[in-house]
Amino acid sequence: MPSDALSIARDLVRCPSVTPADAGALGVLETLLKGAGFDVHRITFSEPGAADIDNLYARIGTTGPHIAFAGHTDVVPPGDEDAWTRGAFSGDVVDGFLYGRGTVDMKGGIACSVAAALDYLAEHGGQPGKDGDGSISFLITGDEEDIAVNGTVKLMQWAAARGEKFDHCVLGEPSNIEELGDCIKIGRRGSQSGTLYVDGVQGHVAYPHRASNPIPDIAALITALVSEPLDRGSAQFQPSNLEFTSVDVGNPAANVIPGQARAKFNIRFNDHHSQESLRALIEARVATAAGNRVQTRIVWEPSNADVFLTEPGPFTDLLVAAIEEVTGRKPELSTGGGTSDARFIKDYCPVIEFGLVGQTMHQIDERTPVADLERLTRIYRGVLDRYFA
Amino acid sequence: MPSDALSIARDLVRCPSVTPADAGALGVLETLLKGAGFDVHRITFSEPGAADIDNLYARIGTTGPHIAFAGHTDVVPPGDEDAWTRGAFSGDVVDGFLYGRGTVDMKGGIACSVAAALDYLAEHGGQPGKDGDGSISFLITGDEEDIAVNGTVKLMQWAAARGEKFDHCVLGEPSNIEELGDCIKIGRRGSQSGTLYVDGVQGHVAYPHRASNPIPDIAALITALVSEPLDRGSAQFQPSNLEFTSVDVGNPAANVIPGQARAKFNIRFNDHHSQESLRALIEARVATAAGNRVQTRIVWEPSNADVFLTEPGPFTDLLVAAIEEVTGRKPELSTGGGTSDARFIKDYCPVIEFGLVGQTMHQIDERTPVADLERLTRIYRGVLDRYFA
Repeated sequence: MPSDALSIARDLVRCPSVTPADAGALGVLETLLKGAGFDVHRITFSEPGAADIDNLYARIGTTGPHIAFAGHTDVVPPGDEDAWTRGAFSGDVVDGFLYGRGTVDMKGGIACSVAAALDYLAEHGGQPGKDGDGSISFLITGDEEDIAVNGTVKLMQWAAARGEKFDHCVLGEPSNIEELGDCIKIGRRGSQSGTLYVDGVQGHVAYPHRASNPIPDIAALITALVSEPLDRGSAQFQPSNLEFTSVDVGNPAANVIPGQARAKFNIRFNDHHSQESLRALIEARVATAAGNRVQTRIVWEPSNADVFLTEPGPFTDLLVAAIEEVTGRKPELSTGGGTSDARFIKDYCPVIEFGLVGQTMHQIDERTPVADLERLTRIYRGVLDRYFA
Repeated sequence: MPSDALSIARDLVRCPSVTPADAGALGVLETLLKGAGFDVHRITFSEPGAADIDNLYARIGTTGPHIAFAGHTDVVPPGDEDAWTRGAFSGDVVDGFLYGRGTVDMKGGIACSVAAALDYLAEHGGQPGKDGDGSISFLITGDEEDIAVNGTVKLMQWAAARGEKFDHCVLGEPSNIEELGDCIKIGRRGSQSGTLYVDGVQGHVAYPHRASNPIPDIAALITALVSEPLDRGSAQFQPSNLEFTSVDVGNPAANVIPGQARAKFNIRFNDHHSQESLRALIEARVATAAGNRVQTRIVWEPSNADVFLTEPGPFTDLLVAAIEEVTGRKPELSTGGGTSDARFIKDYCPVIEFGLVGQTMHQIDERTPVADLERLTRIYRGVLDRYFA
């Protein structure tokens, strides 16, 4: 059976697609999907200062309901390859585990979704849905692990421009913490970075009355910003959190009071906030803490990492049922952790994340039990069965 | 009269002795002092990593009482020479002002003390004191404006090693604020620099519970250290003062909580403290503010800038009387401002500072009224008259 999840995953892992390289990975999928009747597009996106990136869009069917599987074939570097039990791109199976960079993040997840779709189509006359009424598609990028400017964000725009409409999306990121089936991501916090500047008046340390030292002032502002919670969390999210990531003056002279201090911070925020309301909140708190005496300003980093949430409902219930059937576990509906490409998809359709177990992702000896590949394929197959039922 | 203060000052200013260069300045003094019967020594001091520096020691007389005039012939760079009214090393007199780098800091002061000594000796048969019972000496270095490792600190050690004993010293730094006679420095605060380190645990901003961010902790420590005064001042000194001069993390990654933060500070301290007691006080306050949770340490900079004070008494009274006689002003006895070479002299004999008016020091168009050179010479002459009376 050439299209089982393990063999697809091995073919993908053996392509050393360390971001931004493709190394043949998308071609593996293109061949399989074309063979099953998908309409396959390969699109290269460009951006000044960034590497050109290959992307793949494949669809079978022309009507709704339309479910998409999303993912990325690029991987992080393997680190010290000599430290791996098996070659980082060997795709070797040892004691029931498939080893290799990207096995869980997330070539394994892609392999399972492709295997499930091909299996489903083989049993349904090569067309999705009742009487061929429905669509399955794949949105696969090679730009997720780095700056993510030539990947899903542009692929969604490209698809929208040609009239593609998606009803639901499953992103196959490794969502599970310990065991397959323990966690679905139904949302992610947003991320917003900024730099707080405090301007003082430079002078000689022997004559502090002629200077205005910005360091005690920025220290007081840091304390003020971390002391007051941004919120108490929401129904689906933990409380938003602000972390200062750097504070810098760069003054080498021990006898000089500096003229400026700056502090960089990052906020992970929940659905109590939009980026705009969050910026306004922080600016108001800084203004209050600074008062009239202290000169401050905030420079916000451009950010495309807005918060997203797919509210629990029929679509999450469908995935939960498929997971329970295969694993016997009732997954947690989580919104914790970092960002993902789901932030680019959420403006087009509801999106949830479910894939393999993330424990070894980005580590030496990244690996997945082969049994998990088989079970995840059955879960995705269960999703398709229920979706088109 | 080749040895009047103005002509000596012009000869010195015309030597472009930008630290560490001598450019002939000490030779001007050597010639004059030898001509008046001084025993003159030129001593070069060395230190790995620093420029070799010329120094001059001259003494006339072999017994006490022994008064020394101290000073430096090196100057700070002229800055933009085109911005000067007259050449920075021209020694031109315009509208009653002598222009040039070092006129007030402090070639002018040296010129006045040499002129006063030569004048005194000419009237007293070429020997100081009653019946030749006394000594006058000059302690002149070329290393005050930079790192000051091959100057007065070593010259005092060298003199002590050959048995020189000083009873009193006048350092001719520009002590006056607005007008000649308005201020004598009878002490200087000490200076001590250090770096406060706070160690946290690095991590990802999305998972702050797995990290420990040192930035809020160092902000709280900065606030604690600047909030509580070090003392309330003393009889002769203003309160000690701590200024943070830099705070740095250097973390470029917006998604990383850093593992360490550091803050540099400088303390100007009065006679309530020694360097040792001051360090212990700061360490105790940091320990209290940090508690058991926050990991801190302080690295102290080596410092030879201890506090010094010459208590008001007969020696300061003598200088005050000489100033009042010439200027009609009663000078303030001050301990404000930065450090000076007096910190190296105070362990050998009482030292006070009195020279020209400092307003234009280190600036474009550094200059002194010629009249101030004449009056300062008369003041120093009045000091010698009273000292040996």
